[in-house]
Amino acid sequence: MYRSHNCGELRIEHVGQTVRLAGWVARRRDFGALTFVDLRDRYGITQLSFNEEYNKVLLDSARSLGREFVVQAIGKVTERSNKNSKIPTGDIEIVVEELQILNSSLVPPFSIEEETDGGDDIRMQYRYLDLRRDPVRQNLMLRHQVARQVRNYLDNLQFIEVETPVLIKSTPEGARDFIVPSRMNPGQFYALPQSPQTFKQLLMVSGFDRYYQIVKCFRDEDLRADRQPEFTQIDCEMSFVEQEDILNLFEGMTRHLFKEVKGVDIGTLPRMTFDDAMSKYGNDKPDIRFGMEFNYLNDLVKGKGFNVFETAECVLAICADNCANYTRKQLDELTEWVKRPQIGAKGLVYVMCNADGSYKSSVDKFYNQDDLKAWAERCGAKAGDLLLLLSGDLHQVRKQMSELRLEMGQRLGYRDKNVFKALWVIDFPLVEFDADNNRWHAMHHPFTSPKPEDLDKLETDPGAIRANAYDLVINGVEIGGGSIRIHDKNVQSRMFKLLGFSEDEAKYQFGFLMNAFEFGAPPHGGIAFGFDRLCSMFGGADSIRDFIAFPKNNQGRDMMIDAPSNIENKQLDELKIALKA
Amino acid sequence: MYRSHNCGELRIEHVGQTVRLAGWVARRRDFGALTFVDLRDRYGITQLSFNEEYNKVLLDSARSLGREFVVQAIGKVTERSNKNSKIPTGDIEIVVEELQILNSSLVPPFSIEEETDGGDDIRMQYRYLDLRRDPVRQNLMLRHQVARQVRNYLDNLQFIEVETPVLIKSTPEGARDFIVPSRMNPGQFYALPQSPQTFKQLLMVSGFDRYYQIVKCFRDEDLRADRQPEFTQIDCEMSFVEQEDILNLFEGMTRHLFKEVKGVDIGTLPRMTFDDAMSKYGNDKPDIRFGMEFNYLNDLVKGKGFNVFETAECVLAICADNCANYTRKQLDELTEWVKRPQIGAKGLVYVMCNADGSYKSSVDKFYNQDDLKAWAERCGAKAGDLLLLLSGDLHQVRKQMSELRLEMGQRLGYRDKNVFKALWVIDFPLVEFDADNNRWHAMHHPFTSPKPEDLDKLETDPGAIRANAYDLVINGVEIGGGSIRIHDKNVQSRMFKLLGFSEDEAKYQFGFLMNAFEFGAPPHGGIAFGFDRLCSMFGGADSIRDFIAFPKNNQGRDMMIDAPSNIENKQLDELKIALKA
Repeated sequence: MYRSHNCGELRIEHVGQTVRLAGWVARRRDFGALTFVDLRDRYGITQLSFNEEYNKVLLDSARSLGREFVVQAIGKVTERSNKNSKIPTGDIEIVVEELQILNSSLVPPFSIEEETDGGDDIRMQYRYLDLRRDPVRQNLMLRHQVARQVRNYLDNLQFIEVETPVLIKSTPEGARDFIVPSRMNPGQFYALPQSPQTFKQLLMVSGFDRYYQIVKCFRDEDLRADRQPEFTQIDCEMSFVEQEDILNLFEGMTRHLFKEVKGVDIGTLPRMTFDDAMSKYGNDKPDIRFGMEFNYLNDLVKGKGFNVFETAECVLAICADNCANYTRKQLDELTEWVKRPQIGAKGLVYVMCNADGSYKSSVDKFYNQDDLKAWAERCGAKAGDLLLLLSGDLHQVRKQMSELRLEMGQRLGYRDKNVFKALWVIDFPLVEFDADNNRWHAMHHPFTSPKPEDLDKLETDPGAIRANAYDLVINGVEIGGGSIRIHDKNVQSRMFKLLGFSEDEAKYQFGFLMNAFEFGAPPHGGIAFGFDRLCSMFGGADSIRDFIAFPKNNQGRDMMIDAPSNIENKQLDELKIALKA
Repeated sequence: MYRSHNCGELRIEHVGQTVRLAGWVARRRDFGALTFVDLRDRYGITQLSFNEEYNKVLLDSARSLGREFVVQAIGKVTERSNKNSKIPTGDIEIVVEELQILNSSLVPPFSIEEETDGGDDIRMQYRYLDLRRDPVRQNLMLRHQVARQVRNYLDNLQFIEVETPVLIKSTPEGARDFIVPSRMNPGQFYALPQSPQTFKQLLMVSGFDRYYQIVKCFRDEDLRADRQPEFTQIDCEMSFVEQEDILNLFEGMTRHLFKEVKGVDIGTLPRMTFDDAMSKYGNDKPDIRFGMEFNYLNDLVKGKGFNVFETAECVLAICADNCANYTRKQLDELTEWVKRPQIGAKGLVYVMCNADGSYKSSVDKFYNQDDLKAWAERCGAKAGDLLLLLSGDLHQVRKQMSELRLEMGQRLGYRDKNVFKALWVIDFPLVEFDADNNRWHAMHHPFTSPKPEDLDKLETDPGAIRANAYDLVINGVEIGGGSIRIHDKNVQSRMFKLLGFSEDEAKYQFGFLMNAFEFGAPPHGGIAFGFDRLCSMFGGADSIRDFIAFPKNNQGRDMMIDAPSNIENKQLDELKIALKA
């Protein structure tokens, strides 16, 4: 061992001991005959002290140390005259007696501090240096901690972690697969799993009863802001359960994680139907850290000659607390905000609920004080509040209003990262219609069970079928989702048919699952959590990237190792594939 | 919940309770007015009882149940008149009051019993049924248990599990990579990792200090008997350590695993140098459950006119206890065994150490009793033992004798699967010469550190350099291996040069690691364990296949899902690759 202690553990009670430390030079300060070096490792920082009077050669040696040099120091733990209460080792320092440079370092391209001066690209290129920064390391330690607590919770409930294969079969359904040419089977390809969905269902058929896995999954999608081509899921499945059992068990897990990792009691999770979520928040992942629910004003706004509202399918309002004092400039800016292409609203109507009980709106020409008062009452607005109205096609306007609501919540400070509000969204539709391709798509996936009472609509009114499907939503982010699965092969056949699979296609792609269902499949269901997202939520961050040790950028590139890369022709030849121009 | 209890938990103290069970029909027995059904789930088997007198309709319903039907039964726990002491629930049965068939089953293609009548191929095709068999499920539960104990041990020692990427960069060095075409970067490819080697070293550069990961790795090799294209490693790395630290810590882990999983104390692990292992056992993974060490007879056998020995570089003998009574037929058979192409010996010389103190050998024509006595003494043979001699080129004959020793150990029952003997093999050569390609190969990998005292031979006598490398060997199987790594970029450059990498190649393939070494790499080292192999060893099995939920066959095929498979041209087009004839 190069060290007797780490850089985070020495305290006043160690004074007098001779110790051996090793770590990185975080900082060096020279004062006349004295030099202090902050030695850093994963566990903390300890001050090394060098004194010309005590040892001139050592002092010179210390003064040759650059940032990020790796050194070993032997010396005596000594009480500091000038204590630093900010760090746990701040009561002591090491009066160094021997110093060895274990490795030198070039000057890092950015500073290894809490707040760095490095931009995203350079941090990613030198990720191994970025990972030395305390906040990034803390993120990964948090991730480890979350994984441990997930395992503890599930292990104690007799779940078995089973590794499912990474080299599987491509299915054209759903997102795009990454594929892997097989050398031993020329012309054939493996695919990397988008999830272990079919395997975990097979494990249920096998009687494994309670399965989980913290597992890498892969999707070859064009990467939106915060997606990664490889990501990690907490994947779970249980047999002989109903929806209620799964909700309870994983609500327990969620509570356990918040308690153990964050020290927060999130209480009992409310449940909200998909329809309610869409109606109140225009969003199937509502952020319920704040209210600002939607109000439907159709019946109050029609017949007054305001053409925009007259022709609108839906007129929606939200009430922003204490915003009646918004300036013209602020309102204009907000109007521009909703008119951006990302939101796509045509305009924004506002009503200020003045302190004196009067109302001032952008549509005063069409609506009198009584009209506006009725709106305000519908919205539960009080004096000093601001109503914001959007109108249009129901589906569109809900979406736009959801964005506006979140934006206002943000501006009003209602979306505190240290407050956690979780809920279950349930009763999702089974399928949604894809007008472009004139076909039904599974809302979750083709294995999701319809609610038994809706089963007879499978051929007659698919859009009206609710699924035994559920999402765990925390702070407006979908953290997990799952469903009770179909375990009856006939229902599964009908589902495949509804989704437009020919019998041959279904057989080719999922034949093994259909076959398995012939041999006694138990009722089963499960859930999967986005592990990267869960960790970033615990870490109070928006991006998952800094909770992944070696992430890829938006072009799917690992900037550090410079992958993907060209490969040798020999490799392509062996695989019997060629590049196309 | 479809059940109030599982099929393994009901005992005599539950008698009188009304319970709800769910599971699979393992067996049905009809006797006159009675029917018994063994209901099976992961947790055990519980007997359901149906009686015509009590309920004729239920009895008929029970008699309609086929093997592997999934049922739910509600009934009263009752003391059995005819107790079954072989199963934990054998004191009770459920007198069924309600029975619901949750799913039917076709007759399985093989019996779901401890010992099955299914061949390998059919078991793999219907793996989901094979996994219902108790021994296979036990294997996977053992695997889960081993993983848990690994994590417990390492977590307690402040190791952090960090996930390293699966989509990395191809390196032509070493075994063949699986590659993944990148759609977003046409013409470029990711590779699947053969191990997270470089990433774990980068994590050390990052100051993570103690890393581990239970991680999937990939090798596109022609699959020998017991290899899988995807396999799992326990991958570990530590900073500021010397070889001794790593050996001690992971010896502790090995001891912990044996204690917790097998209830076995494996004691302190002996250490053996590579040279000793080769000299005494002809094998760098010696099975030390038994002795039968090699004896070198060169000095005793020469000059007696036996041409085979005269011209041999090396004459080796092992002593097989109490085998002097081998018949002519047995000796002939053994001779044929060593002459098989897999072993490749030209012949076998034997010496029987008779009970009366005389010797009988196959080379009596050349050697007298005194000669043979000297051999026997060299071998420590006693009356009743049998000496077996092979001769030839040192390297070859050691290999052959190692095989013969293992075979004799097997025949003599010295290789009991319930006895565990572990050791460290240390001081491996750094490199070995590949005469075919006239170049040096790294024995472990290019990052392995030479012993400091041998460093100056890097350019002058590479073959003589010992590495700070070590293997954990248990019962003759390499379970783990690792090394202290090079952390000095100059040494790493010299190593790359020795291995025939041009500077450009080294930079292209490992530039990020070389760059990282410029910024303060700490001394570090690590180890990786073959997790599949470790589990199969704990399970007392020779093959890893039944310790993997969904293994592939020797053609790299998943027989169950039928992968790899053809993919749609659209996918190839998107990836800008084409199949070659």
